[in-house]
Amino acid sequence: MSQPELTLYHSWISSASRKVRFCLAEKGLAYKPLKVSLAKFEHHSDWYKKLNPSGVVPALMVDGVPYVESNFINEFLDDAFPAPPLRPTDAAEIHDMRVWSKYIDDICLPAIQKHNWMMNYHPMARAWTDEQLEERLAAIPTENRRQVWYRMARDPYTDEELQTALNILLDMRDKIEARTKRAAWIVGDAFSLADINAAPYAKRLEELDAGAFDCANFPNAGAWWQAVSTRPGFIAAKIESFVEQGKPDYDPVGG
Amino acid sequence: MSQPELTLYHSWISSASRKVRFCLAEKGLAYKPLKVSLAKFEHHSDWYKKLNPSGVVPALMVDGVPYVESNFINEFLDDAFPAPPLRPTDAAEIHDMRVWSKYIDDICLPAIQKHNWMMNYHPMARAWTDEQLEERLAAIPTENRRQVWYRMARDPYTDEELQTALNILLDMRDKIEARTKRAAWIVGDAFSLADINAAPYAKRLEELDAGAFDCANFPNAGAWWQAVSTRPGFIAAKIESFVEQGKPDYDPVGG
Repeated sequence: MSQPELTLYHSWISSASRKVRFCLAEKGLAYKPLKVSLAKFEHHSDWYKKLNPSGVVPALMVDGVPYVESNFINEFLDDAFPAPPLRPTDAAEIHDMRVWSKYIDDICLPAIQKHNWMMNYHPMARAWTDEQLEERLAAIPTENRRQVWYRMARDPYTDEELQTALNILLDMRDKIEARTKRAAWIVGDAFSLADINAAPYAKRLEELDAGAFDCANFPNAGAWWQAVSTRPGFIAAKIESFVEQGKPDYDPVGG
Repeated sequence: MSQPELTLYHSWISSASRKVRFCLAEKGLAYKPLKVSLAKFEHHSDWYKKLNPSGVVPALMVDGVPYVESNFINEFLDDAFPAPPLRPTDAAEIHDMRVWSKYIDDICLPAIQKHNWMMNYHPMARAWTDEQLEERLAAIPTENRRQVWYRMARDPYTDEELQTALNILLDMRDKIEARTKRAAWIVGDAFSLADINAAPYAKRLEELDAGAFDCANFPNAGAWWQAVSTRPGFIAAKIESFVEQGKPDYDPVGG
């Protein structure tokens, strides 16, 4: 495939957006980033839901056609632009990469979300009137996300829930430690989408717990994180401070 | 890959097991089926959770190594045994196939589950003492499935919930009608995993609503279902009556 026109509707702080930015950078693909303001609920707007019916970021436009689901966007990029390869060549390892990426989505995403949303959205949502809340909820296309926003507005996560969520992310770190003890990367001997899809979670975990990837205590996970976070692709993807990138005026590249 | 030894831990009535049986049959792969009795909670036993930590069927053993997640098992089979191909060749269509298969898992599975579990497990679970219930729940590894079993025992789905679930499956049928109006199969012009992964849901929907694939009202979805359900692979996979196959002594092949 010759390079089509790529536009990424994304948020700087969204873990799923970060995964796709990382993959695009590793592929060396030029794209136009367009920021979707989560604080202004642009992802729940009618125009955006035409691109991504689930009302979540990111959506990758390829010659005007939207692609959704960050794990699958990244596999699509590897299908459409095979060099450099970001999936293992062995069928068993490809399967392992997919199951790992689904674990990141199904288990680690809801965990990180609890911390991120309490910081970014609870202070705003708690002030909404019942009418405002009802209006916000009516625009959200999925039951799961409606529940999360309800909790931000009226029933914030407890300290116990936040600790449980942190423990889930620490368990991810333990899994990475065990995997990178056996091989250089999360799945086997080559850098792959398994590493890319975990990277935004490692970045955020380190912000929540500064010692999470301490090389003295977690030598293999620590070395893995050092190797991932210094890659030119990681740096180009701007997976940076959650607090800084969450500020409304953060806009390093006009998108 | 020369053919390794394949063993499928499965249940005759489980939608995810049916997807994998269908794929194995389309590939012409010989395998040993081993029935996991859901009514006896064998899927929550320690030995089975070593194969599939989520405690759900199926698990495909490949030379003694377990593979989980039905959508990914089927992609693995296509990676490991490329002929006949069961994925599109176009990157955009492969992406569409993955998003469709995730929709089947995330949206249609919880819907079909409500009807299946009310029929199969509610009559048993409602009779459990609190102690029995607690013991059952303690063996279930995921929060989601604990909630479902709690509902079977103490808070069965309402008629309204069952109707909502049926509507979700009818909406799947409408999506199939729209897709097969544009092309012969769910994704493009070739039979693929998109069709395989939807087939067990179409079978069960037709049992719940005999007119769901009536060719007079849904000409394209009706023709699609006719084509799918008469394939030798579908027949070999024994995707048959839910009531018959749910009987404890149903055992057509010793597995």
